[in-house]
Amino acid sequence: MSTEDTTSRRRGRRPAGQDTRTALVEAARAVFAEHGYERATVRAIAGRAGVDAAMVNHWFGGKEGLFAQAVLELPFSPLELLSTLRDGPDDQFGERIVRTFVTRWDGVGGETFQALVRSVASHELAATVLREFFSKFFAEIIADMGSGNAALRTSLCASQLVGIGVIRYIARFEPMVAADVDTLVKAIAPTVQRYLTGDLGL
Amino acid sequence: MSTEDTTSRRRGRRPAGQDTRTALVEAARAVFAEHGYERATVRAIAGRAGVDAAMVNHWFGGKEGLFAQAVLELPFSPLELLSTLRDGPDDQFGERIVRTFVTRWDGVGGETFQALVRSVASHELAATVLREFFSKFFAEIIADMGSGNAALRTSLCASQLVGIGVIRYIARFEPMVAADVDTLVKAIAPTVQRYLTGDLGL
Repeated sequence: MSTEDTTSRRRGRRPAGQDTRTALVEAARAVFAEHGYERATVRAIAGRAGVDAAMVNHWFGGKEGLFAQAVLELPFSPLELLSTLRDGPDDQFGERIVRTFVTRWDGVGGETFQALVRSVASHELAATVLREFFSKFFAEIIADMGSGNAALRTSLCASQLVGIGVIRYIARFEPMVAADVDTLVKAIAPTVQRYLTGDLGL
Repeated sequence: MSTEDTTSRRRGRRPAGQDTRTALVEAARAVFAEHGYERATVRAIAGRAGVDAAMVNHWFGGKEGLFAQAVLELPFSPLELLSTLRDGPDDQFGERIVRTFVTRWDGVGGETFQALVRSVASHELAATVLREFFSKFFAEIIADMGSGNAALRTSLCASQLVGIGVIRYIARFEPMVAADVDTLVKAIAPTVQRYLTGDLGL
């Protein structure tokens, strides 16, 4: 696979698998832009790419993963990420989220986060899909915790996570850039945990 | 003054005052871009604009205000804002910051915040200056509170404030958009207060 990847970056024919993947990414961008996230169908995207709809599952694990990678250009699969986050006690959810958020984005480099924010700040579609994604998946986990106000709690968590990303990867405030993951988890996880399950004073 | 402002938007000659202000804004953008915030001097900016250096104080209250309005295009004077924030007990500082942040940005409309973020995400200079501004003024206030770790506390506060802005004005997650100021203060002020003066678990 890594040989194929390398080859595909050179001039000349790409392997069929990468062709399929590329065609799906291009078709997905067009169909999401035209119809928005909810109304875009896997069938329509595969049809436009001229490949079987099963290829979407094969390459992206479904519509969400395709969106995340084609439009948001996220460096990971959101669904796989959510299942990692679910794995542990609710009262340590805040810690897992902060640790996972920082570790994943550190791993791919700040410019990826910067591209995401630029995209969300410039294109209504990217903002819409990010919002739909959070409200569909993240809010469901929070609702399961049973603390009420799931949508507000989702927004609050999103605000703190996005803020870490902006300050660590884009505005690059020290010592937020140099801080190790444990320091950030200690400082910020209590915030996220309160937003998830704590008293919001409402 | 408001008559002059209205007139200046029409075709034809602008009043001399607005000419001065416009010339300073244009000169400031050039000088800040060339030399960065710290090395840019009021004298150099006024010189390039062909006006007296006293005009910078007259129109912008100093170099910081000129930067904030010319480069970041902030809708308020940062120094005036900081003096508002200082006015009250330390243990309600978090509440004052969240209330002021949301009220000010609500007042000028979300697209202004969006422009700021786009600018910070696209131009290294905007990020640098935002950082220098925070570290120079905000960190000083926090240092005065005597809880230690002033730079980390500044980064943490910045992360939560910027995050509110991104979610309320750019990504527009409900109910973060519809929430009134009091709700946001209740939910978020304890976070900011902890970042300012609380135990960070370090």
